[in-house]
Amino acid sequence: MLAWIISIGNELLIGRVVNTNAAWLAKKLTYLGIKVARIVVVPDDEAEIVGAFREALEKADLVISTGGLGPTPDDITNFAVAKALGVEAVLDETAKRWVEEKYKARGYPSTPERLKMAYIPKGSRPLYNSAGVAPGIWAEAGGKIVVVLPGVPKEMEAIFEEQVEPLLKGRTRLCFAEDSFMLRGVPEADLAPLIRDALRIDERVYVKSHPKGHEVGAPLEEIHIYASAEDCGTAQAIVARAKGFLIDSIRSKFPRAEIS
Amino acid sequence: MLAWIISIGNELLIGRVVNTNAAWLAKKLTYLGIKVARIVVVPDDEAEIVGAFREALEKADLVISTGGLGPTPDDITNFAVAKALGVEAVLDETAKRWVEEKYKARGYPSTPERLKMAYIPKGSRPLYNSAGVAPGIWAEAGGKIVVVLPGVPKEMEAIFEEQVEPLLKGRTRLCFAEDSFMLRGVPEADLAPLIRDALRIDERVYVKSHPKGHEVGAPLEEIHIYASAEDCGTAQAIVARAKGFLIDSIRSKFPRAEIS
Repeated sequence: MLAWIISIGNELLIGRVVNTNAAWLAKKLTYLGIKVARIVVVPDDEAEIVGAFREALEKADLVISTGGLGPTPDDITNFAVAKALGVEAVLDETAKRWVEEKYKARGYPSTPERLKMAYIPKGSRPLYNSAGVAPGIWAEAGGKIVVVLPGVPKEMEAIFEEQVEPLLKGRTRLCFAEDSFMLRGVPEADLAPLIRDALRIDERVYVKSHPKGHEVGAPLEEIHIYASAEDCGTAQAIVARAKGFLIDSIRSKFPRAEIS
Repeated sequence: MLAWIISIGNELLIGRVVNTNAAWLAKKLTYLGIKVARIVVVPDDEAEIVGAFREALEKADLVISTGGLGPTPDDITNFAVAKALGVEAVLDETAKRWVEEKYKARGYPSTPERLKMAYIPKGSRPLYNSAGVAPGIWAEAGGKIVVVLPGVPKEMEAIFEEQVEPLLKGRTRLCFAEDSFMLRGVPEADLAPLIRDALRIDERVYVKSHPKGHEVGAPLEEIHIYASAEDCGTAQAIVARAKGFLIDSIRSKFPRAEIS
């Protein structure tokens, strides 16, 4: 299963907010055995949101977005997603009840700005927000899944963990495994041929070195090894083989390197 | 001037690394008066990188990327950018000297993995990396600017600040201004009509509320106001007017709200 993440919000494009939501979701999806193929950040602009969803729906099996579900004028994601799916946005009775109950409990009346959050694309269903007000959305169309989540991290995380994760679990078939080690004293450029050899061990394995020191002055890398396979045992075995191969090769070629 | 940021690296798509580079660049570009229209994160895959650059070159005036310039097998950005630009990747003599000198100073010989970093698209020029080895790239084609930077944050920042920023400064015409305040005790949904009115003050102003509390239990928002204009005085004046209007409106409609 291939996924695209769409992050919506001007605050991300002016650098006021770091996109931690996308990293959190990418890790969650990866561990569910779903490959995240792209992350796209777009502004609070209908044409941009619709365009990003349409492109994502062409390329991915799962499209998951964050942001733009609140009550303020820039929150237009639910309406834009309906447009991208080619359906009307309709006032959902369940979502309306959730939203009204949350405000009523504190003595706030129903207003157009509040009810706006209860609109979802026709044929989709709302996802209860236990950490806030704006419901999420789950839509399925043409064999694709669309998940729409709020941008407030604690609300996005609550809806994903309580409702989206259980639904996705039944639909994925891959298991992800990873491991890493630190290497001191070998420039990345000298490590490159060994990584190339390790990648040949299995087409499902991926090895990436993350420089943490200085390439020529004080070489230090974190070596990250990961693989996805049909079952977790296989994924772990592939990672273990690649890690073992790399450590042996490094020890034999660079006896003074420090591995930890 | 419209910009797209392309972030390259599997580590971003498996959620192992949070994309702080994109936020850092987005803030820098915004303050230079350049509007960041999209951030795209793609894996270390030639077709994906080439596709993202081609799409960006159609839509934006400036395309700026991070990642994939190192010596390991997954580092292929310089070659992919050449392909996207429709030119050969050539060994640049200046870049070659920079790379070789850095390694030589520590007694390391020249290897194919090291020289790989000195390849740039034909017709472009290398940007010196004072914080590491891999040079950045500056290319201009068909009225568009392409800037290619390493993914290691300190190297990306050094090249941008020392070389890219001075070059971009002469080419932008807008000035960005911003201000913000905290508001306690008013749910975002009640704030929405006031924000809508504030947005009517000037088409260049943007107001966004960032919920920090709980919409119904303990409403708390950071209200961020920003604008870009031909000169900094105008941008600041627009922001000041919108902020003044918002604070006056909130005080008159919600006398018990706390503004700080």
